[in-house]
Amino acid sequence: MPESLEQKIIRSYQLNADAWTEIIAKEGIKSRQLVTNKAIVDAVLSHQPVDVLDVGCGEGWLVRALIDQSINATGIDGVEALVNSARKRGKGIFEICQYEDIEQCPALAPSFDVIVCNFALLGEQSTQDLLSACANKLVLGKGRLLIQTLHPLLVNSSPYFTGWKEGSWAGFPDTFTEPPDWYFRTLEDWLAVFSDAGLVLLGINEPRHPQTGEPASIIFNCASV
Amino acid sequence: MPESLEQKIIRSYQLNADAWTEIIAKEGIKSRQLVTNKAIVDAVLSHQPVDVLDVGCGEGWLVRALIDQSINATGIDGVEALVNSARKRGKGIFEICQYEDIEQCPALAPSFDVIVCNFALLGEQSTQDLLSACANKLVLGKGRLLIQTLHPLLVNSSPYFTGWKEGSWAGFPDTFTEPPDWYFRTLEDWLAVFSDAGLVLLGINEPRHPQTGEPASIIFNCASV
Repeated sequence: MPESLEQKIIRSYQLNADAWTEIIAKEGIKSRQLVTNKAIVDAVLSHQPVDVLDVGCGEGWLVRALIDQSINATGIDGVEALVNSARKRGKGIFEICQYEDIEQCPALAPSFDVIVCNFALLGEQSTQDLLSACANKLVLGKGRLLIQTLHPLLVNSSPYFTGWKEGSWAGFPDTFTEPPDWYFRTLEDWLAVFSDAGLVLLGINEPRHPQTGEPASIIFNCASV
Repeated sequence: MPESLEQKIIRSYQLNADAWTEIIAKEGIKSRQLVTNKAIVDAVLSHQPVDVLDVGCGEGWLVRALIDQSINATGIDGVEALVNSARKRGKGIFEICQYEDIEQCPALAPSFDVIVCNFALLGEQSTQDLLSACANKLVLGKGRLLIQTLHPLLVNSSPYFTGWKEGSWAGFPDTFTEPPDWYFRTLEDWLAVFSDAGLVLLGINEPRHPQTGEPASIIFNCASV
């Protein structure tokens, strides 16, 4: 069976795990340093959570940032090399877990006050499955799923249609290789996938780039229905 | 007391009522003919409503289009000259009613299956007040508020900040005069005003321009909480 686009995403991050760990450690992605890291931390803190799950935690910076704020944060990722990298960097609990498996992962608490996906939803079916699973792992009533992603209207990705887009490491160092294709969703289709997953969108943040004033990303704030 | 920006909106449409009625009758606004008229009619029909209220009905085209589909549609508008124009054009019930008064308007049914605002939310406080009132006039549980407006990310209105913007009749005939300033909301702030009004956003439509493929507008599909 040929490798699926979903599998290619995992393989690409497996291949690029060291390069990724290094660029995050060196604070080498400008938009993250200027805008989006603080935006997602602030969004999580605004809900005053006790238990937080970081889905697609990568090398773990967000888990560590939340632990520094006395939050009980756990990270999961489908890329073994990134979880290993996160574990090596000290504090925090990190588990290898594919998105489709999070409801079955024995290491995870049954529910969380906040589940966060920070630029971690790159696939099609995997995102649908994950969102449905997240809806079941939020603390009843007050649990929140926070998703930071590229702003659909500001991605340089004409035409404006939902579908797989060609990947690129443009702007990244030469050490990055085999960029994975990724699944673009219009704003309309983000709302549709939330609805399909049993989620309702309570609010949106559009963190601004300090120089351009334009949104540098979008943060969806969802609850289970 | 100087005229408020909200009052100026009403006065401008009062001044331009004849020009407005004429351009709609002549199908003179291209984006409406190509995309947005059909989009809002389809959005209303998708909910299979019996009773529909068109808020900011203008000269009444949408009410008439819905009546043609055997829907019991009523139009209200704060601009007397436009309501008079609507009444002259035949079928449909039209009432003069300011947005802040819709809960007290004796001519209106206590609740509607669908309330629709088609490019009719131009003010700041008036929009907030109207949305809160609409939340109270939706049929419990299944009532929907449909708002079609300029897509916040595609308005040529840099910088991207919520606030009053200078009006313009660019692209309209010379018969149009005194363009009113209008209140721009970022996507983030649309969600916030929904939440403040006791509404929840269930879905978004982004009707596409057939030539560019870009959204020609946005339609918010809201329910009361």
